[in-house]
Amino acid sequence: MTSVESSLVADLLDGKHRALARVITKIENRESGYRDIVSLLYEHTGNADVVGITGSPGAGKSTLVDKMARVYRDRGLTVGVVAVDPSSPFTGGAVLGDRIRMASNVGDMDVFFRSMSARGNLGGLSTATADAVKALDAFGKDKVIIETVGAGQNEIDIVRAADTVAVLVPPSSGDNVQMLKAGILEIGDVFVVNKADLAGADKTVQELEEMIHMGGGKMRVAGGHHGFSDVEVDLGEGRAWDPVVVETVATQAEGVDEFLAALEDHQDYLDDSGERERKARQRVAEEIRTLLRDDAAGIVGDEVERRGGIDDLVDAVLEGETDPYSIADEVTGPLRDCVDARD
Amino acid sequence: MTSVESSLVADLLDGKHRALARVITKIENRESGYRDIVSLLYEHTGNADVVGITGSPGAGKSTLVDKMARVYRDRGLTVGVVAVDPSSPFTGGAVLGDRIRMASNVGDMDVFFRSMSARGNLGGLSTATADAVKALDAFGKDKVIIETVGAGQNEIDIVRAADTVAVLVPPSSGDNVQMLKAGILEIGDVFVVNKADLAGADKTVQELEEMIHMGGGKMRVAGGHHGFSDVEVDLGEGRAWDPVVVETVATQAEGVDEFLAALEDHQDYLDDSGERERKARQRVAEEIRTLLRDDAAGIVGDEVERRGGIDDLVDAVLEGETDPYSIADEVTGPLRDCVDARD
Repeated sequence: MTSVESSLVADLLDGKHRALARVITKIENRESGYRDIVSLLYEHTGNADVVGITGSPGAGKSTLVDKMARVYRDRGLTVGVVAVDPSSPFTGGAVLGDRIRMASNVGDMDVFFRSMSARGNLGGLSTATADAVKALDAFGKDKVIIETVGAGQNEIDIVRAADTVAVLVPPSSGDNVQMLKAGILEIGDVFVVNKADLAGADKTVQELEEMIHMGGGKMRVAGGHHGFSDVEVDLGEGRAWDPVVVETVATQAEGVDEFLAALEDHQDYLDDSGERERKARQRVAEEIRTLLRDDAAGIVGDEVERRGGIDDLVDAVLEGETDPYSIADEVTGPLRDCVDARD
Repeated sequence: MTSVESSLVADLLDGKHRALARVITKIENRESGYRDIVSLLYEHTGNADVVGITGSPGAGKSTLVDKMARVYRDRGLTVGVVAVDPSSPFTGGAVLGDRIRMASNVGDMDVFFRSMSARGNLGGLSTATADAVKALDAFGKDKVIIETVGAGQNEIDIVRAADTVAVLVPPSSGDNVQMLKAGILEIGDVFVVNKADLAGADKTVQELEEMIHMGGGKMRVAGGHHGFSDVEVDLGEGRAWDPVVVETVATQAEGVDEFLAALEDHQDYLDDSGERERKARQRVAEEIRTLLRDDAAGIVGDEVERRGGIDDLVDAVLEGETDPYSIADEVTGPLRDCVDARD
């Protein structure tokens, strides 16, 4: 490790936003030294409440996140936001510009906004997001929000870094609720029907209820306009946490307090049930596995390059000289021998 | 390699169905020696037309596949079917039983049916399926059909082993067509609206058309009941292959000839466009990468066990003694050193 990394980490821990920004840039670009930095930060993490927010484009995520940040600030809490777009290889300049303007509306740097994009390495985006969250956590932000577009596997992997996941659903003809079936229903702790003043909102709430009920759980509906008016239905053997549906009109800041209360309920549940510890174990195990897998893939990738690259190997297979299993044995066999020889 | 594997391969290449069945069992269970077997078979592959068929449960895949197999047999072609269910850890006995009965209706073993299941190793199922297809191909089956339930990422990975992919869609209120958006639209070469005698079939065909049009391609609609009555719409810069929508009533064998004609059109397109070769290259490269990744993950997995297992490592992280990046460096560093030392 160089002194650059050590002093960057010292500055970050000392509360310097410029150092925080540089660390996240290093993490995003996998710049040399980023691993040592995350290693150093690790022991300072574990204090922030991490909330993941996902939902289809146009659901109103940015607006809701901005209102959330404002309420947190009013309560004297510091906030970090990582906005991740797995579908775009580059950070949209306009979007980033807008967000920085909004951030400055809040009036101080304690709402720290940051966009991240795939930069051609989609597989690594969830790891990079988790590392950026660690930087914000170690910095001392009380609340860290991960905001991501969409409901695909990449987005699901990204919000896994959060303790609590909120899924935003726009009021609609039902199409969007149907789309939720593909995995997002399982990861949502809180569902937010935003733009609850539009036609179709009640139908969307009802459809969400039905879908969550089909999962065999309990759920309750919190009326965004008049606090929690709970409808609690027990369908027998359910999940330990009952997903909550909240209605908001983010542009008017309506329902935001109720939404934050639902998030806090979930955080309390995590503590009381021992689920927070279980999740932490699971997340660390997954982090270790992912890093090991990536590192091992890097080693065999280099070995393939040393042997002339993948194209030459494909040619050899297509010309009938060898086959993929023989190639795998040739490339990884010596690695295995190396490991065995150390015993 | 033992003489068991050599003689099993010799028997398979000699046309013995019992040897084919044993080879696929070894592949499915990753029994010792299966890699050598697939290596030996590899040079005998590349002659079968491989068709992948996917679609939601109840779309009528089994019935359509059975009718396809019957038509192929009538034409004097040999057929192999691999039915894969990624959602079920075990092969459903009843389903398998039904299928065997249907197979025997066709009257001879040249329609070779085989079910495969995840057996707790979902990640490896697409590799195992591709290997089973190679066994059928090397055996000399003219047509190999991969049938799989659903439209998730696992199913998409599974049908990637096919040259041509058909997606079955039941006539519906639109829900199922909406579900297709999640990735399956891109992999379908031929779309089949089965149960075309039911209400909603025309609407489903129309919705499919619209969705494929949104993708910017051309498409044509083949009327299942009266041959191809093509509606060809050019929307400018499209795909090289224009996905075709076919209507069938598989239970009545209606539209099956038209469906097979659409598959053959696609096979011709693959040959004429050079796309078959491009796909083969891509597939071999992907096979090599997957095997290398899996083997490398196996080596680091063993190394983790040697160090006390993942649980001990997680404990060490949670107690603040280390962090995932340091663990990854410790585990894979020596591997990298080993490789470097060989230069």
